[in-house]
Amino acid sequence: MNSPAAEPLGSTPRTRVRRLPEKAATDRAALHAVLDAGLVAHVAVTDNSGPNGAAQPYILPVAYARDGERVLFHGSTGSRLFRALADGAPTCLTVTLLDGLVVARSAFESSMNYRGAMVLGTCRMLPEAEKEAALERITEHLMPGRWQDLRAPKRKELAATVVLALPLTEASVKISTGDPDDDPDDLASPVWAGVVPLHEAYCDPKPAANLAPGIDVPDYLRGWRR
Amino acid sequence: MNSPAAEPLGSTPRTRVRRLPEKAATDRAALHAVLDAGLVAHVAVTDNSGPNGAAQPYILPVAYARDGERVLFHGSTGSRLFRALADGAPTCLTVTLLDGLVVARSAFESSMNYRGAMVLGTCRMLPEAEKEAALERITEHLMPGRWQDLRAPKRKELAATVVLALPLTEASVKISTGDPDDDPDDLASPVWAGVVPLHEAYCDPKPAANLAPGIDVPDYLRGWRR
Repeated sequence: MNSPAAEPLGSTPRTRVRRLPEKAATDRAALHAVLDAGLVAHVAVTDNSGPNGAAQPYILPVAYARDGERVLFHGSTGSRLFRALADGAPTCLTVTLLDGLVVARSAFESSMNYRGAMVLGTCRMLPEAEKEAALERITEHLMPGRWQDLRAPKRKELAATVVLALPLTEASVKISTGDPDDDPDDLASPVWAGVVPLHEAYCDPKPAANLAPGIDVPDYLRGWRR
Repeated sequence: MNSPAAEPLGSTPRTRVRRLPEKAATDRAALHAVLDAGLVAHVAVTDNSGPNGAAQPYILPVAYARDGERVLFHGSTGSRLFRALADGAPTCLTVTLLDGLVVARSAFESSMNYRGAMVLGTCRMLPEAEKEAALERITEHLMPGRWQDLRAPKRKELAATVVLALPLTEASVKISTGDPDDDPDDLASPVWAGVVPLHEAYCDPKPAANLAPGIDVPDYLRGWRR
């Protein structure tokens, strides 16, 4: 059996980057870096609710974490679409990080800088015994240091949660950086061109209205950075 | 014929918000506001490249703009998935805006604050005569004031661009705000709880390396805000 880690990125017909292939990354470190930098993934699943029973895709935004050569994410056992994923419906998971607006001298070359990862495959539903460790991984990805402060999940909470693992076997990464790629004919244009970087940041934590007096913001939380 | 604007949000079996229905918005102004606030949409399209010819969804991140009761987005005529959308493949378009981390007293209630829109339907490919106005709309959504500074698109640029319009006929909106919704049993917990808001902002514009000296950052660009 091939190790998922041994498959080069973008090496299958389904993941080869055909549009702007110069932006395709080929090392798995790039895939890991994009997945590790995101907070939300978009996950697609298809049913037959399209016109005349045609395949209809749906997209679910999910919290997730990378765990080695797989992505973990969770949802409710009450969700029809999560149950379809748990049953092995083919899926596509994407993480898109927007880094800036690329302000070119033509509309055609105006674009965005971004880091994007796409993973194709089918999910495995984790058994009860593996759920808690997976939820710790997801919590610590989003809120580093938090898990130690939380009570253990209750059995009924775990029972209400589907945790899915998608292997990073078939994936691609596309990264767009730097200046506009203007048509040489446009370089004499008298208009400004360049990049307007985008930056995401956390603001000051807001205590819950029902927080008891005297409980300070924990140190680990003060260290959270985007 | 019903006007798309007359359909209530989340009124079809495919768009009814079943999970956490109290977070569903029902007025179209909320849909418009989410779409107007985003920069990137995720669009899904399905082919038969799954195992044994099964339906396989793909997700494409796209620049877009709302134009009245439709969403416009564009791609390359060379993209197989864009051609499928142009041919009327059922699609799902989502815009997800992340507003903060909800730091609850349990992992189960820890979550995110967000505004999310989902639109289902099929796209119409715009004819040549409508493309330029649509590209102006998309450019002005992302880069307000920019269009007037750009030369007109060339015929070959328009020919290489597919512009798609997705009507806002069948859509849902889900908005999560405010404090953690902790289990009453957890309120005596001695750990901090609250919200860590997320904020996206533009940084200082970086001129292109090949920008001629003496061209200042335009006033309209200085006004761009997230």
